[in-house]
Amino acid sequence: MSELRRDPVDGRWVIIAPDQRRRPVDFHTDPYPPAAGPCPFCPGHEPDTPREIFAFRDPGTAADTPGWRVRVIPNKFPVLRVEEDLHREGKGSYDLMSGLGAHEVIIESPRHEDRHATMSAAQMEECVWTSRARMLDLKQDERIKYVMVFKNYGTAAGANLAHPHSQLIALPILPKRLIEETQGTREYFHRHERCVFCDIVSQEVADQERLITANEDFIAIVPWAPIFPFEVWILPRRHQPRFEDPAPDLYRRFAAILGEVSRRLEAALDRPHYNAVLHTAPFLEGYEEHYHWHFEIMPRITRVAGFEVGTGFYVNPIPPEEAAKFLREVR
Amino acid sequence: MSELRRDPVDGRWVIIAPDQRRRPVDFHTDPYPPAAGPCPFCPGHEPDTPREIFAFRDPGTAADTPGWRVRVIPNKFPVLRVEEDLHREGKGSYDLMSGLGAHEVIIESPRHEDRHATMSAAQMEECVWTSRARMLDLKQDERIKYVMVFKNYGTAAGANLAHPHSQLIALPILPKRLIEETQGTREYFHRHERCVFCDIVSQEVADQERLITANEDFIAIVPWAPIFPFEVWILPRRHQPRFEDPAPDLYRRFAAILGEVSRRLEAALDRPHYNAVLHTAPFLEGYEEHYHWHFEIMPRITRVAGFEVGTGFYVNPIPPEEAAKFLREVR
Repeated sequence: MSELRRDPVDGRWVIIAPDQRRRPVDFHTDPYPPAAGPCPFCPGHEPDTPREIFAFRDPGTAADTPGWRVRVIPNKFPVLRVEEDLHREGKGSYDLMSGLGAHEVIIESPRHEDRHATMSAAQMEECVWTSRARMLDLKQDERIKYVMVFKNYGTAAGANLAHPHSQLIALPILPKRLIEETQGTREYFHRHERCVFCDIVSQEVADQERLITANEDFIAIVPWAPIFPFEVWILPRRHQPRFEDPAPDLYRRFAAILGEVSRRLEAALDRPHYNAVLHTAPFLEGYEEHYHWHFEIMPRITRVAGFEVGTGFYVNPIPPEEAAKFLREVR
Repeated sequence: MSELRRDPVDGRWVIIAPDQRRRPVDFHTDPYPPAAGPCPFCPGHEPDTPREIFAFRDPGTAADTPGWRVRVIPNKFPVLRVEEDLHREGKGSYDLMSGLGAHEVIIESPRHEDRHATMSAAQMEECVWTSRARMLDLKQDERIKYVMVFKNYGTAAGANLAHPHSQLIALPILPKRLIEETQGTREYFHRHERCVFCDIVSQEVADQERLITANEDFIAIVPWAPIFPFEVWILPRRHQPRFEDPAPDLYRRFAAILGEVSRRLEAALDRPHYNAVLHTAPFLEGYEEHYHWHFEIMPRITRVAGFEVGTGFYVNPIPPEEAAKFLREVR
């Protein structure tokens, strides 16, 4: 028996159509077999990459040499460049803008075979601080409206390189999904004088059935209307619009829950390919009351038909309550 | 040098980032190797499928026996069912609706190995009339707000069966992308007193650079801001909100240009996997002035990262003018 569920944030409807032929345990995918190292991201190969922008390094080590724990470099094939001028133009009824922005790679560990599920809590925490450092730096450029931090893990998720890394793209416009989300959160706030994400946190903690795990500062849930099977959201318990405004212990606890969720997903789905995206308030003012940063993890165990991309209509064969139970109980 | 382009209909921005490492000719994919027949969709196997809802048949042949040229059956594993009641419910701050709707399969040819590129003009035209017939029938159910006709061709596009077929899903709500499109077309109409698609047709016919081919009633273009490389839109030249309101010769000419575009895509990209979606005005009143039906074809030669699904932000490595030139000149 299928149901239609509406995402309370962006208003997207999803068809939850339990596939009678498959149980969650049948959704194992081919574990992502990372290519053996060393690779250009490995220590000792720094001259093969563009020059580093930022790093956490051991004392006394020089830029672009080994000794780093996390290292940020420009993407060798950037989709946007900071050297561009911000140029806008109409072509008939069409709109065009120059490809201004930035595209960087965050190398998350010197160990080629590391994964989020195997990284130490301290290593993960330094990755989180690195994202913040890059955001604050890019925020100084007034032409930049948004910085998206994301991770593609595995070929099915679009990754080309196995060495653990995230990416960031800095944009002169807001990405569509953020526009939709922030419209949704603003409307919800006007109607209720409350943040929709704060309400989600309360309801999920009360309901328990979509809750996977929690710590003092964060909860991890399978959301009410996920577009992907086993999609996971990590949300701060307390209202905080911007990822880059840390509170004491916040990043430590975020790193901890992210590590735990990664290990649960690996155990449940046999090391799935996945995408992850950080959603945070745009740099401009006016989002403080109604936006609430969070982190979305989307395992790629089913195929996204272009149909779904073309219509915005998703069918998810795994009810979120079932996915959450599975992730909660897996060891 | 990359650019940001805005889709004039739904407002989505796309990064056109020409990949210096690849030319259009490098984008060949593995041609889709269809499984050999016969299959449950082949003539003689009618008892293996649910009972037919509609067919074009040779005189004197009975339902659910051979002799059909196009045949429509319910999907054996429907994501929505017409037997459901339309039931709406709030769960805390969440919205839920029963899985009311319909999910049908249009078997487009009795010949297992047929493709849009090989089908006769007459066969293709009967497929087009079939989509209309099913739409008109489903339109009688007032709970249905929209019927989406779509085609997944090849595994990379989500197809499981090789036998030529399209599908339709009838929905009790508008799909997200249609909501966005119709909001965009309504706003454009209010500002200009013109249909945005009519303006696109004029501009593309004048510019020529994104035009692939045309006939008396239709043009085929690579759109200004395509999310997929080699994406193709087929648009009626004259304003027509609804696909299901035919004009004389209209379906014949639509079948002709769809066949031609299919052959050009096969020649250019070596039989690519693709998705195709028919966009038409919702069944409700109020779309007549500003909406304009069209058909979108999305070859699946690059991978959609969940990142792109998660952010709504697409990077397209092939400038549309280059793709159109390639499709125009290919033989």
